[in-house]
Amino acid sequence: MAHKSRRRIIVIDCQTDDLADACKFWEGALGGTAELDDDGKYAVIEGTSDGIVLLQAVDHAPRVHIDIESDDQAAEVARLEALGATVVARIKRWTVMEAPTGHRFCIVNPQADDFADGAKDWP
Amino acid sequence: MAHKSRRRIIVIDCQTDDLADACKFWEGALGGTAELDDDGKYAVIEGTSDGIVLLQAVDHAPRVHIDIESDDQAAEVARLEALGATVVARIKRWTVMEAPTGHRFCIVNPQADDFADGAKDWP
Repeated sequence: MAHKSRRRIIVIDCQTDDLADACKFWEGALGGTAELDDDGKYAVIEGTSDGIVLLQAVDHAPRVHIDIESDDQAAEVARLEALGATVVARIKRWTVMEAPTGHRFCIVNPQADDFADGAKDWP
Repeated sequence: MAHKSRRRIIVIDCQTDDLADACKFWEGALGGTAELDDDGKYAVIEGTSDGIVLLQAVDHAPRVHIDIESDDQAAEVARLEALGATVVARIKRWTVMEAPTGHRFCIVNPQADDFADGAKDWP
């Protein structure tokens, strides 16, 4: 079955238990407003110039990763495996993969109503 | 003097001397066409769903970083320093900075004719 995917989100993984300081810097740098989740582990920066920027509290070294949204995660994971990527972990509602170039990225569900506009079609 | 900046570009730093394999994977993954520079050190992936994606050959571990375009690099660097970022290096036509969160990013010149559309104004 055909499916779609889209690269639009960047995730700024911050090595901290408290994203408050990270929110302050990145909303200033990017010119947006951070909306921090109740558990303090995720924040979305609204109103930046392009795309969707998320902050995530992690226990590993600071990293930026991309998310690929898809309306069919299993099909998208299989497509990327065929290109040489590997599955690192399946976590809650997303899949962590690693590219042949060594970069980790995540496959996630569509994150905005306009997902399909400009998404790539994979027959 | 007022200036503008915009976060639109992601750079996928690949630890390699030859971006050919990296181009093959990432153009497949993102659904675009990689245009590799003559020196083989930079490639732009044209036609992805969102933003501008660059590949860069580096000698450090794989990393994804963001570029911030600005029509006044010096003013943008000063603005980001006031927010807590530091200058790591000034290289050719761009400036490498490090955020308080430990993420490196670059300040670059505008990369497309529509830079000003949606760029942030900093009075």
